[in-house]
Amino acid sequence: MKPYVIGVDLGGTNTVFGIVDSAGNIIEEGSIKTGSFNTATEFVAAGLDCIHHIVKKVGGIEQIQGMGIGAPNANYYTGTIEFAPNIAWAHDGVVQLAGMFAGELGIPVRMTNDANAAAMGEKLYGIAKGMKNFIMITLGTGLGAGIIINGKLVYGHDGFAGELGHVNMDRSENARPCGCGRKGCLETYCSATGVARTAREFLQKTNRPSILRQKPLDEIESLDVFLAAQKGDEIAKEVFQFTGTMLGWACADFTAFSSPEAFIFFGGLCKSGDLIMKPIEETYNRVVMPLFRNKAKFLISGLMNKNAAVLGASALGWE
Amino acid sequence: MKPYVIGVDLGGTNTVFGIVDSAGNIIEEGSIKTGSFNTATEFVAAGLDCIHHIVKKVGGIEQIQGMGIGAPNANYYTGTIEFAPNIAWAHDGVVQLAGMFAGELGIPVRMTNDANAAAMGEKLYGIAKGMKNFIMITLGTGLGAGIIINGKLVYGHDGFAGELGHVNMDRSENARPCGCGRKGCLETYCSATGVARTAREFLQKTNRPSILRQKPLDEIESLDVFLAAQKGDEIAKEVFQFTGTMLGWACADFTAFSSPEAFIFFGGLCKSGDLIMKPIEETYNRVVMPLFRNKAKFLISGLMNKNAAVLGASALGWE
Repeated sequence: MKPYVIGVDLGGTNTVFGIVDSAGNIIEEGSIKTGSFNTATEFVAAGLDCIHHIVKKVGGIEQIQGMGIGAPNANYYTGTIEFAPNIAWAHDGVVQLAGMFAGELGIPVRMTNDANAAAMGEKLYGIAKGMKNFIMITLGTGLGAGIIINGKLVYGHDGFAGELGHVNMDRSENARPCGCGRKGCLETYCSATGVARTAREFLQKTNRPSILRQKPLDEIESLDVFLAAQKGDEIAKEVFQFTGTMLGWACADFTAFSSPEAFIFFGGLCKSGDLIMKPIEETYNRVVMPLFRNKAKFLISGLMNKNAAVLGASALGWE
Repeated sequence: MKPYVIGVDLGGTNTVFGIVDSAGNIIEEGSIKTGSFNTATEFVAAGLDCIHHIVKKVGGIEQIQGMGIGAPNANYYTGTIEFAPNIAWAHDGVVQLAGMFAGELGIPVRMTNDANAAAMGEKLYGIAKGMKNFIMITLGTGLGAGIIINGKLVYGHDGFAGELGHVNMDRSENARPCGCGRKGCLETYCSATGVARTAREFLQKTNRPSILRQKPLDEIESLDVFLAAQKGDEIAKEVFQFTGTMLGWACADFTAFSSPEAFIFFGGLCKSGDLIMKPIEETYNRVVMPLFRNKAKFLISGLMNKNAAVLGASALGWE
């Protein structure tokens, strides 16, 4: 085994490249602007420049075991990014990104979606060390998930398993519309966007006073709701209660499926701590099938303050 | 490898023992009445008599590789039956059944629940040969499931994964009560019992004519609904439409989790064929995340007319 891997966090704005050792330390780091390229070829060329620059510092490509990329709409089986709405050079087609990098670097390159990468990072370097069955839930703009069963990521038949943000929570006509084109998806309620949306709904439904009314309704963000709840604002607290309760119901269904040892939460919304975690766990243990009650752990990621996305992606470099 | 395994289908009424060869043929068979024993020890003693009798016919225990038992409330990890409501000698405790048989027979004995056994049988001898990711759904009195991911059964952290009959389909107060002590579980709608319940509800809601009205309301069974639907009875057809639609929604959520190659249905309700399969598949492809549309297959078990429970359990004997 060579001493390092490269982890790549490919986001809509920035792409961060990191050289990671086997203990999970990021030794070197560099980045480029994802959005400043028109074609995948240009993006890869700039990426290679950045990689060569940091690889030189650790003794050259001979020191690198492999590379892992975490990216939206990435398919592990094919190494492709497919129709990624927020990436100009990948939004209307299929880009063979892993193959393009592997061909130039001469090392194995694997790719998976960002939530799967986070789950792998948690398993290797975080709070899930030693766990064989857990579900990672990332609460960001949307809700992503990485599912580990029998010690392995679940990719499913087509490489796209783990879309837990898109299980249905409301089959009624007035369910919330989702970016995926349907209605009532979990992530329309349980995500940063969902929290802001719930706050706006709650504020419109009543005339009760709230700190949140200091801002125009359509400018309220999840951070505002968190800050208001911290100050004891009733409506803001109810928003977190609603969000956590919905997640508790969803986790109860996920347990019926794979009965994990733990649910591990990651992302901005987790910074609200007990405000969201308590209603998740309380609801879960109230509504889950009695057989499963009080078994699963509800944890916050151990990598929240590290560059978890790079670490997670780098985990694929060891495969 | 020895030439045979023993498969055991332990049901509430009968326990069937079969000697199975590597091609999935049941060579010898015997059975005892599960319910005629007061203790697990008595049950095991009678079971051993039956096993010895059929094993003798194939050349003795030296010809047997192992034994697999499919049983309600069985835990694969511990080889125990735990609090099985319909088995007198196992309803109020934990019975180390696999260990008791293994100790006496001197061969490895593994145990899993009946739906998991059916999934294993389907994978080895049925329509799922060669599939690495599929979900088996058994539609009997309740709804059971066996989930295969990366070629292996999903047992979860505690051995009880795959309780898909108990995902929630209705969080409202007037959701149907379930035998598990909660409300709104999938199996309260999608099972033989669920179909009969839906029929009674539909008949009570209107005065529309129906063949089903020839029977007292509380005596209607799923078979009556099937026969009525076959004769073109509108209400009976609507019952199947309702049941299949609910299952289609549920399968869409299961796909968000593990994106299987196929859903395979087993059990009495499947004999209604298109009446139930059509609304499942139509609903699924209408409501599933667009990414997954028209990918999964919807199949009826290839073992419906064989002794699938014995075959499925026997699959564990090869492990």
